[in-house]
Amino acid sequence: MTSADLHFLKNFPPGPLDAYRKDASFDWKQMALFLEGEELLRYKHKIFKTLEDDPVFSRGFETPSLERQRELTFLRSRQVQSYDFLPDDELFSSPMKYRILTESLGMYDWTISSKMSLNSEMFAGSAMNQGTRHLDLVEQNKANENFGCFILTELSHGSNTKQMRTTATYDSKTQEFVINTPDFEATKIWVGNLGKQATHGILYAQLYTEDGVCHGLHSFVAPIRHPKTLLAFPGVMVGDMGEKIGLNGLDNGFVAFNQYRIPRENLLDKFGDVTPEGKYVTPYKDPNKRFGASLGALSGGRVGITGMCVANLKLCLPIAIRYSAVRRQFGPGKDEIPVIEYQLQQWRLFPYLAATYALENFAMSFFRNYVAFRIGSMMGDTSQQQADFGREIHALSCASKPLAGWLARDAIQECREACGGHGYFSVNRLGVIRNDHDPNNTYEGDNNVILQQTSNYLLSFAEQAFAGKELSSEAASVNVLSDLPRRLKSKFTAKTIQDCMNPEVALEAYKWLVCYLLTESHRRLSEQLSKGKDSFTARNDSQAYYCRSLAMAYIEHTVLDRFVKVSIEKDDEETPKELQPVLRRMAALYGLWSMEKHLATLYQGGYISGGDAPAIIHEAILQLCMQLKPDAVSLVDAIAPPDFILNSPIGSSDGQIYKNLYSAMLQGSKTLERASYWQKAVTPPPRLPQAKL
Amino acid sequence: MTSADLHFLKNFPPGPLDAYRKDASFDWKQMALFLEGEELLRYKHKIFKTLEDDPVFSRGFETPSLERQRELTFLRSRQVQSYDFLPDDELFSSPMKYRILTESLGMYDWTISSKMSLNSEMFAGSAMNQGTRHLDLVEQNKANENFGCFILTELSHGSNTKQMRTTATYDSKTQEFVINTPDFEATKIWVGNLGKQATHGILYAQLYTEDGVCHGLHSFVAPIRHPKTLLAFPGVMVGDMGEKIGLNGLDNGFVAFNQYRIPRENLLDKFGDVTPEGKYVTPYKDPNKRFGASLGALSGGRVGITGMCVANLKLCLPIAIRYSAVRRQFGPGKDEIPVIEYQLQQWRLFPYLAATYALENFAMSFFRNYVAFRIGSMMGDTSQQQADFGREIHALSCASKPLAGWLARDAIQECREACGGHGYFSVNRLGVIRNDHDPNNTYEGDNNVILQQTSNYLLSFAEQAFAGKELSSEAASVNVLSDLPRRLKSKFTAKTIQDCMNPEVALEAYKWLVCYLLTESHRRLSEQLSKGKDSFTARNDSQAYYCRSLAMAYIEHTVLDRFVKVSIEKDDEETPKELQPVLRRMAALYGLWSMEKHLATLYQGGYISGGDAPAIIHEAILQLCMQLKPDAVSLVDAIAPPDFILNSPIGSSDGQIYKNLYSAMLQGSKTLERASYWQKAVTPPPRLPQAKL
Repeated sequence: MTSADLHFLKNFPPGPLDAYRKDASFDWKQMALFLEGEELLRYKHKIFKTLEDDPVFSRGFETPSLERQRELTFLRSRQVQSYDFLPDDELFSSPMKYRILTESLGMYDWTISSKMSLNSEMFAGSAMNQGTRHLDLVEQNKANENFGCFILTELSHGSNTKQMRTTATYDSKTQEFVINTPDFEATKIWVGNLGKQATHGILYAQLYTEDGVCHGLHSFVAPIRHPKTLLAFPGVMVGDMGEKIGLNGLDNGFVAFNQYRIPRENLLDKFGDVTPEGKYVTPYKDPNKRFGASLGALSGGRVGITGMCVANLKLCLPIAIRYSAVRRQFGPGKDEIPVIEYQLQQWRLFPYLAATYALENFAMSFFRNYVAFRIGSMMGDTSQQQADFGREIHALSCASKPLAGWLARDAIQECREACGGHGYFSVNRLGVIRNDHDPNNTYEGDNNVILQQTSNYLLSFAEQAFAGKELSSEAASVNVLSDLPRRLKSKFTAKTIQDCMNPEVALEAYKWLVCYLLTESHRRLSEQLSKGKDSFTARNDSQAYYCRSLAMAYIEHTVLDRFVKVSIEKDDEETPKELQPVLRRMAALYGLWSMEKHLATLYQGGYISGGDAPAIIHEAILQLCMQLKPDAVSLVDAIAPPDFILNSPIGSSDGQIYKNLYSAMLQGSKTLERASYWQKAVTPPPRLPQAKL
Repeated sequence: MTSADLHFLKNFPPGPLDAYRKDASFDWKQMALFLEGEELLRYKHKIFKTLEDDPVFSRGFETPSLERQRELTFLRSRQVQSYDFLPDDELFSSPMKYRILTESLGMYDWTISSKMSLNSEMFAGSAMNQGTRHLDLVEQNKANENFGCFILTELSHGSNTKQMRTTATYDSKTQEFVINTPDFEATKIWVGNLGKQATHGILYAQLYTEDGVCHGLHSFVAPIRHPKTLLAFPGVMVGDMGEKIGLNGLDNGFVAFNQYRIPRENLLDKFGDVTPEGKYVTPYKDPNKRFGASLGALSGGRVGITGMCVANLKLCLPIAIRYSAVRRQFGPGKDEIPVIEYQLQQWRLFPYLAATYALENFAMSFFRNYVAFRIGSMMGDTSQQQADFGREIHALSCASKPLAGWLARDAIQECREACGGHGYFSVNRLGVIRNDHDPNNTYEGDNNVILQQTSNYLLSFAEQAFAGKELSSEAASVNVLSDLPRRLKSKFTAKTIQDCMNPEVALEAYKWLVCYLLTESHRRLSEQLSKGKDSFTARNDSQAYYCRSLAMAYIEHTVLDRFVKVSIEKDDEETPKELQPVLRRMAALYGLWSMEKHLATLYQGGYISGGDAPAIIHEAILQLCMQLKPDAVSLVDAIAPPDFILNSPIGSSDGQIYKNLYSAMLQGSKTLERASYWQKAVTPPPRLPQAKL
């Protein structure tokens, strides 16, 4: 298999990007192949081409009205369903395709894949996993006879799910649950698919038996709208939440229930059931454990979001880097030079490019970890090892989402600014990417809140680590805590700029950093407890500068570690020699640039001393940027989707930034037409009195 | 004058924010009075109330269509004009009102003040300042007989204005200029007001005489559309650029000219003229100096944007802090606690609150500097002192815009995330604020580009500074470079957390930092030159980590310095005793938090050594946050506009976050109505073939 066989990767037309493309140290097709492998690459491009060939997916230049956006996403998700891109057998034989499908659709528009996965996974999947008697519902879902959503959050409660206040009270006379929203603050909100389309929802409510005992949060299947008319059932007040900052193709909704009755069988019964006579039965003794088990499946959400963040990086960086390679402004002589030639522009963009590759590698390998874990669970593996693996996946996902989420947030913004005024043009898509990316930092757990899960996990190893034990874990992320006392004695040894070009330099620094921050966080927490604070407060007062930094350093180390490894070998095969140098450079750049933000801590703990280290680190970063310049365009070519999907005139692979932009501008709505309100504009205004205070 | 006399500052209704309001260490009305003084405060609230009383300014819950947004801004700006908030005599007697007017309208919607100032200042003002024979045009502008815009940027040229390619060739036979756009890349774009409304524009083009000589960029009055019909004149292709990321009420447009003839008199002649016979005459010998003089007036744009950024801070922080004081989630015991009680939430938001006060003080005092400078110019002051003052204003504005622009950008984002999912609701306005704020980092000079103006300015003092001279400047910003060799020997002397509570600690660190970065930048630049690089390249290669950091440290120092001073006295009067403690706390917090980002540099240069400093600085930041908690709500009460202007259900001063949000949600468009496309949604989809690769 050589890159020449990849006929579906089209060669680029000659144009302004040629000069940089010719300078590249590697073949972009080989890189694309290396990143995903032929099967997935082919699969991805089949999806892309299918969308491109279908006029349902053609886009205009102006944001449609809110209702039209809802409709377009509905039509497009329906169309995707018709193409049946991932039949069950293909999913089981190649689970990675699930990731590729989500990412490929998402690169076109995230609301399509969200709409679909909310229906098929969060709704039908939950019904299957949490219920024993709901197969009909799942069959009907596959046959499009119902359309579902997942109803959890309330107006006044999000992260603290246990405090949800919607009730489901059993009535043995009719063998029904009575669902009730006690007051408007308990209105269920932020429910994707509920605004306009859902016929059913997985509803979370506090289960009460007739004796007045509350058995905690349980899930129910709640019919919302009639499947043939889409009119809401009496007792259900359901509506559209209205406009969000982004993702407006998805119809988020709210719902309140007024003594609304549903059959007893609608309780999803795997974690607890009520007999027809009204007796509560559960296989779990400890309600906390039951609760944890029912929400445990949600780890996949954060794994998925980590991938979504990387996909957003793969959208914004091609736009900014191609634009920078064509846009000329000023120059040392008569001729203007492309802005990518400026050190400052390189320094603003290339670290994010390196981070994109580092995170892409992490997200891919982490998804494999997650699949391995889920297969274990499905196979009924109840070993301690499997449980530990689950905890590690949870800890990793609770830090990888914040890392990838914030990094993409900052990269998108830097790309927007790096494209100057043209970056502010809506049609160039950077604003859409930013607005659609934004909630990744909030849902499936607010970043700052879930980072505590990661630091708690790491702190659970403190005793062993301080004792100098060897530590290891299934996904190898905990290994860094091994031999901690000796590690804490290590020092920064790089003496020259050249030394710093080795990615191991940053990696070593991170190993020290994670150990140091574990020690400091543990000390801080003990100190807070010894002041007499309760454990809740002590923990809250140990986040800023301590536990939060620990969790971030841990995930940065893991991402860097995996990236350095893949620059040498991948899947037990040596990484192609042609690709090693550029991958090593990116690993070094990502490592130094990430580590730079911790310089003060490295000083504080004595890992670095004297005045030389920052200067050589900075100079190494600048030189790595310069070395990456000839490869930058090909590096984005290897990760960018086709132009139809990227949908950005200034980010197009032909590099014709002005022609494309001009063409888009001319074809806008009413571009050359006189304003509808022109008569008012030519009529002089009256004078008016100001308000009196 | 006591705060009791400020009857136009309404008391807040009882509600969920009471508890924090009662805890405040000061009276928010006294603070509001201290910040702006009675006259300006009253003026501001008169504007606010006038808008609130007028149904033209009533807003709905969904973003209107692009054309409707254009129309609304047109109607509203016309309405503002009718109110005549700032007649000329009032402007001259109280120039600060100009700033208050812009900010007050902007807090409602920035496109209104933009539309107006593009017409009255950039168009009519330029005609007045750059021409000697264009008074008619200015009179017609005041009488609404024309409506103008400012036409400079081209599709392929922005910052590098000298490379503009539109031509104006004189034809003595008809005594006309022939305006021509040589090709589509020279199309003029990004012109505010041009998309739909402008009848005339100040057009920048290369002036050619009949002998084929190019005399450089000149400005002309170009008629664009017929003032009675708003139809474009033949030879002018003018259109609307379409949707932007934000600010869509403003109709940015593009225009290309096809051998379009305008009378000779339309040349704005103050910097150069062509005689009827076709001879070019200019009072300036050096074309560079002429060019500089014609663009010099643009410094005011950056002064204004600095204020706009602060106004955006005064929008986003009240939303996030009021929300945080009401929103409860988790708690140590049975009851949930407001999220503002969490150290992490305080640490995320309060430094931005302190920065808002620091920057508000700076923006206000800097506007006064600017007014003083402009009055000097209008009085015909041609002294060296006045010229030096102009350079200083330029250097300050080229750094204050980036500082305020990036700080507001980050604050808005942090506020969005700090409000969780509800922050993503469009109606709560944080997305609109972000999207509308975004271009502040680009226009009137890209932040990274203009920072070089500041560092160049500072480097011009290097020789004197290295020689240990006392340096001073009109706005006192250069004084920090005095006695540099001795300053470089100073060290961080704070030993305890308590020491760091004194804002002087950060101020002293900044004085060292500015001197150190000047030295390092100068060394870096010399080093690059000594490697044989031309001066253009040497300078470009000295930005990251050097000149750019220098410019940022310089402006951070200036902002902090002025804030520390005002915590003690203002306008030669002692700051009210009741306000001093909270102002000092904010000064210390802003100082430490800003300085923290330079910790590695402070280590690198030996200002800090050992491991203790970061720990006490961090702890001081956390303790200052805790101390500010009881004051936080009152601090935002003192700077927030009235609820009608703030226009954010979760940011409302009554603290009824859920009631307001619920009410907004219910009153959205078609909230409870069945989707218009419901029939499609209940019809099962067909199966479709995928594309072949």
